[in-house]
Amino acid sequence: MSTTSQNSAAPSVLVISAHSGDFVWRAGGAIALTAHHGSPVHVLCLSYGERGESRGLWKQEGMTVERVKQARHEEAAKAAEVLGATIEFLDLGDYPLRVEPEVVDRIAGIIRERKPDVLLTHVANDPYNRDHNQAHETTLTARMIAQAHGADPSTPALGAPQVLQFEPHQPEVCGFYPELLLDITPVFDRKVEAMKCMTAQEHLVRYYIDLGMRRGVQAVRNGAPSSVQYAEAYKRTFPTVGAQLW
Amino acid sequence: MSTTSQNSAAPSVLVISAHSGDFVWRAGGAIALTAHHGSPVHVLCLSYGERGESRGLWKQEGMTVERVKQARHEEAAKAAEVLGATIEFLDLGDYPLRVEPEVVDRIAGIIRERKPDVLLTHVANDPYNRDHNQAHETTLTARMIAQAHGADPSTPALGAPQVLQFEPHQPEVCGFYPELLLDITPVFDRKVEAMKCMTAQEHLVRYYIDLGMRRGVQAVRNGAPSSVQYAEAYKRTFPTVGAQLW
Amino acid sequence: MSTTSQNSAAPSVLVISAHSGDFVWRAGGAIALTAHHGSPVHVLCLSYGERGESRGLWKQEGMTVERVKQARHEEAAKAAEVLGATIEFLDLGDYPLRVEPEVVDRIAGIIRERKPDVLLTHVANDPYNRDHNQAHETTLTARMIAQAHGADPSTPALGAPQVLQFEPHQPEVCGFYPELLLDITPVFDRKVEAMKCMTAQEHLVRYYIDLGMRRGVQAVRNGAPSSVQYAEAYKRTFPTVGAQLW
Amino acid sequence: MSTTSQNSAAPSVLVISAHSGDFVWRAGGAIALTAHHGSPVHVLCLSYGERGESRGLWKQEGMTVERVKQARHEEAAKAAEVLGATIEFLDLGDYPLRVEPEVVDRIAGIIRERKPDVLLTHVANDPYNRDHNQAHETTLTARMIAQAHGADPSTPALGAPQVLQFEPHQPEVCGFYPELLLDITPVFDRKVEAMKCMTAQEHLVRYYIDLGMRRGVQAVRNGAPSSVQYAEAYKRTFPTVGAQLW
Amino acid sequence: MSTTSQNSAAPSVLVISAHSGDFVWRAGGAIALTAHHGSPVHVLCLSYGERGESRGLWKQEGMTVERVKQARHEEAAKAAEVLGATIEFLDLGDYPLRVEPEVVDRIAGIIRERKPDVLLTHVANDPYNRDHNQAHETTLTARMIAQAHGADPSTPALGAPQVLQFEPHQPEVCGFYPELLLDITPVFDRKVEAMKCMTAQEHLVRYYIDLGMRRGVQAVRNGAPSSVQYAEAYKRTFPTVGAQLW
Amino acid sequence: MSTTSQNSAAPSVLVISAHSGDFVWRAGGAIALTAHHGSPVHVLCLSYGERGESRGLWKQEGMTVERVKQARHEEAAKAAEVLGATIEFLDLGDYPLRVEPEVVDRIAGIIRERKPDVLLTHVANDPYNRDHNQAHETTLTARMIAQAHGADPSTPALGAPQVLQFEPHQPEVCGFYPELLLDITPVFDRKVEAMKCMTAQEHLVRYYIDLGMRRGVQAVRNGAPSSVQYAEAYKRTFPTVGAQLW
Repeated sequence: MSTTSQNSAAPSVLVISAHSGDFVWRAGGAIALTAHHGSPVHVLCLSYGERGESRGLWKQEGMTVERVKQARHEEAAKAAEVLGATIEFLDLGDYPLRVEPEVVDRIAGIIRERKPDVLLTHVANDPYNRDHNQAHETTLTARMIAQAHGADPSTPALGAPQVLQFEPHQPEVCGFYPELLLDITPVFDRKVEAMKCMTAQEHLVRYYIDLGMRRGVQAVRNGAPSSVQYAEAYKRTFPTVGAQLW
Repeated sequence: MSTTSQNSAAPSVLVISAHSGDFVWRAGGAIALTAHHGSPVHVLCLSYGERGESRGLWKQEGMTVERVKQARHEEAAKAAEVLGATIEFLDLGDYPLRVEPEVVDRIAGIIRERKPDVLLTHVANDPYNRDHNQAHETTLTARMIAQAHGADPSTPALGAPQVLQFEPHQPEVCGFYPELLLDITPVFDRKVEAMKCMTAQEHLVRYYIDLGMRRGVQAVRNGAPSSVQYAEAYKRTFPTVGAQLW
Repeated sequence: MSTTSQNSAAPSVLVISAHSGDFVWRAGGAIALTAHHGSPVHVLCLSYGERGESRGLWKQEGMTVERVKQARHEEAAKAAEVLGATIEFLDLGDYPLRVEPEVVDRIAGIIRERKPDVLLTHVANDPYNRDHNQAHETTLTARMIAQAHGADPSTPALGAPQVLQFEPHQPEVCGFYPELLLDITPVFDRKVEAMKCMTAQEHLVRYYIDLGMRRGVQAVRNGAPSSVQYAEAYKRTFPTVGAQLW
Repeated sequence: MSTTSQNSAAPSVLVISAHSGDFVWRAGGAIALTAHHGSPVHVLCLSYGERGESRGLWKQEGMTVERVKQARHEEAAKAAEVLGATIEFLDLGDYPLRVEPEVVDRIAGIIRERKPDVLLTHVANDPYNRDHNQAHETTLTARMIAQAHGADPSTPALGAPQVLQFEPHQPEVCGFYPELLLDITPVFDRKVEAMKCMTAQEHLVRYYIDLGMRRGVQAVRNGAPSSVQYAEAYKRTFPTVGAQLW
Repeated sequence: MSTTSQNSAAPSVLVISAHSGDFVWRAGGAIALTAHHGSPVHVLCLSYGERGESRGLWKQEGMTVERVKQARHEEAAKAAEVLGATIEFLDLGDYPLRVEPEVVDRIAGIIRERKPDVLLTHVANDPYNRDHNQAHETTLTARMIAQAHGADPSTPALGAPQVLQFEPHQPEVCGFYPELLLDITPVFDRKVEAMKCMTAQEHLVRYYIDLGMRRGVQAVRNGAPSSVQYAEAYKRTFPTVGAQLW
Repeated sequence: MSTTSQNSAAPSVLVISAHSGDFVWRAGGAIALTAHHGSPVHVLCLSYGERGESRGLWKQEGMTVERVKQARHEEAAKAAEVLGATIEFLDLGDYPLRVEPEVVDRIAGIIRERKPDVLLTHVANDPYNRDHNQAHETTLTARMIAQAHGADPSTPALGAPQVLQFEPHQPEVCGFYPELLLDITPVFDRKVEAMKCMTAQEHLVRYYIDLGMRRGVQAVRNGAPSSVQYAEAYKRTFPTVGAQLW
């Protein structure tokens, strides 16, 4: 482990997901792996993706926004359970996602309370999906607020958690490049099971299984042992710190 | 440790240094730290920096290239000893450094023989110092040759060691940004002692002590414990692989 | 043609222009060419550029904002007519242009209704003119909303139109590079006539004629037939798709 | 001097500082130097940095936001006086800094009134500190408004002042690279005296003295005379114009 | 078609492949598609990839370089035949590939003789594989020589063919992003058949089938009709020219 | 003037031009301006551009390489005289330009002898013209050699001249952006007269007059006085140093 956990106990992860499916497709492996090691993982869904990422549900006759949200809530809660994470929904609306100042402050409070060692969120600039940018910006701003000594003097200020960025759907067009290829082989069955909960987007399951294999092959090409079969790619926002070169 | 060592024993490091001083100023901490952990470190000096990086020696009356090389050899050998590394000099000439095809093949052989887990070398594009570019290119080409199954079928092919790039003198102008801030606090006195061996460039000792402190402050700002006082910065060439998020 | 039109009839273009002059100077050729081929082109002017881009009018004694807007409206309407496009003014104010959430939704509605095959707008980051950035961001967000199956379930969701970015006044400083050099030779006289309608900025006519020639010379240097005399440059936002290599 | 001053008298500088300490650490030398040459310098502090940049004060028992602001006001006013600048506080709040449209307009008015030849502000994209981004964006937008002929027809429009960006705390991670190394040797004692006024951040004094030396060494390496001991680094936003090559 | 063919007859394609397998994995679809449309495609293999890209063969007892080359020659010739292309081998050696000046001139002669409308080759900067860089540089230099009016005054100078860059194995690490997603659905079975000829690298067949599907999904997401199932990605070197916006 | 001249007398400029026409089209204004101020300017033509940049001459019946070189020599010598510069031809051949190690050393000697305050040369990466890249690399390597204290201990080492990069024909595609817009209005007639000497490329005269005007308009937009009519654009390689902010 290259950084010391900010907590006395196990290191903790907080995921900030623009829509209620993103954490499953893009970070399901990292979540399951962290939980598998006994560390707490909490998922914050800014929206349900009810308008823009629920194609399967909208094909059903007489669908309404409320019913879509309900279905998405259930699916995501189930997926989080499968992965071993707790989950919380802010229901801010999607396409577009708009995050008002008081919500940023609220998220800062959640970060300060949970003291994550690592934050997971979206890339800075996805030309296809501006909700992803919004989640990225919100994460960096809330992290900064949580670090302010004077933001809430009754609680201790946050340290400096890394912010890992998920792989977007079309990585190269979003300026994404993999800086960490995370071995998720031991928990890949968990990720697949979680993905299968997302019935509104079931066309993506095969796609993300293939992507996991492709990133796994690349991990081996970058020095991982040949037992690595599946990986997830992340881009870092800040330098890593530590006492080892590899 | 995020990757499995390619060796059965301890992980090993190979440093490819354009001039005989570079490994001390830019990577002395990493070298001492690795040696401190009991792992082998080998330094390959492509040239002595006899023409371009020996200002102190050239100020002496009646200096010759041979005497400069001799002095630089002694200084670097002493510094390597202080740091705990073995060292080897290819004496290819500097300003400019030119690396002929057969020398690249020879370096590939050294890499294959030593099987380093990490290679340390210069950045790809330093507008001030094209010898640094040459060392970078040589390292990537020699690494590639060492990986070829058919390059020397009698010895096993190399795996995929990371290539960490040193911090250049003017980092921003060279496209360098720190991706790893390595805590060198436990061995900083070793680095200082090694730097003091380099009498031809003694004006740099103070400069690199200050830089070590500055990078140390930044490490703490990026989540290192406050006990970290000194750091060295590195840029990665390839993604990291591993089983942990931090 | 490398993509299939989303419409049953001819492909259609929608231009989102920060100020009422931009579509003429920067995309007049593309508009005239599209109209010339019988396809519908619609121009959406977010503002009149009444404060920041009407220097000629403000030199007149006793000028008021309302009179500037009126003059700019007339000029732009006339220019659109010359080019063969329909036009619509949102009058959101300029320097700065601010686009409220409900206006973004309204623009998304216009996009969904018109189903353009191509959107034309400004670059993402113009340090001279933040209104251009605002138009870019608005276009990408509105496009995303128009694609959401649940945004307005009574109408079909938008496909994936390309977003072509106009050439800004100082392209290199804005991160612009030409990815498409569009041959506008057959309609260049139309563009010149349209530019001459813009009396508040008449100092620009000569400038844009020269730019058209310069881009034309570059088109020939990139493989266009020597009959190409005038071109306009565009940067793409997304990959092109198609069945041919050239 | 490579550009003609917009004023009949001496060239003038306006500094737009996110927090009340930034102008001291990052631009104290440039301010003192300009004042030393008899030119007016005005500092606009958007916030006091009361929540996020006053760690020293928050360590005191029973501290309140109002008392922090008061202390920060006094420190910054004293530092400005030492540097030879006038100063003005907008007290917009920090962590996060939010700049409402009417405030941007007000800043545009200040710019138009003072007609600076150079604006100094933060970088565009600091992942650690989004308040810096906000100050950058505010500066570019306010500058654009001040240039509009129709923004306030009763006063003359602004010319085109350069916008120089300060060096951020972790330059490489913020996309900063030095384009101007400003010799501040003649006024460095002024800068040190001003830094010592900032008691809420006194841990930074040593850090910025070292940074000044480091940039001074780099200035000499880029052709400055060896008498240069201290420098500040700036990134430009726009091309320079002038009649000389060096 | 957006550019006029330089030939009186059908447009032609020339592929410059560092190793004898690259053209199959990376461009087999483009080649088969071009041939399918009745246009000539010629493949130039700079090396056999005998040392670095023939792992399967080197696993066989008693293998020699000559036997590897022979096997690779046969495989590649067969694959080219399946794809509908002619092929030529320069046998320059691999890992590293070195291209002497006279060979560059010879390639320039081949280009001038064949007058391709499009050149296909590798990316500029692949940190894993410097042979790819060498092929890129060779292609641009040979293209430039072929364009010189005085290079061989007895034959006409080349026009300005586009240079499309193949997708490398780890695209994001190589600065690759897809600018063209080429629909290869109609010829995908040809590509699969050609890939199956490459017995020395048979572990890659599944990998490239998956990649083809993944790029196909992305093509649809960028506006291709839903009938598109498989695609290949290319990066352009030069702007496109033409008379249409899409 | 922002840096102190390295010479006791007037500052001096050395131009390293890949082909014998480049210095006229791309830097004629800077050369004439420098000479106009009484400073020495020397032009080093690496080749005559006899194969690739003499289209006009090759159209003549029975033309030979020797006659082209002769004509190019005369034109360039005449143009240099018009501009007020001395000139020297290395006749290294073009398309491609190859610079052997001993020639780099020779150029380093010329640099050390002339002690230029500014070097002018081509950009680092022009995909259309690799000779330009070669000239760039040669300049940086020769500059580095000239700076080495031990390269020729009998003469003093070079300081640190800026390297300004010319504007290439298609700037955005070559990664060029203007960092200096040099006012060449006072000497523009000299540049035009010099361009008219280049009869082998006379189609470029009009093009470069237009470009000069365009860059002049941009200079005014960046703060130059409205009397500026013509400018040349340059990209810097190193930071500027100096004692003034503008």
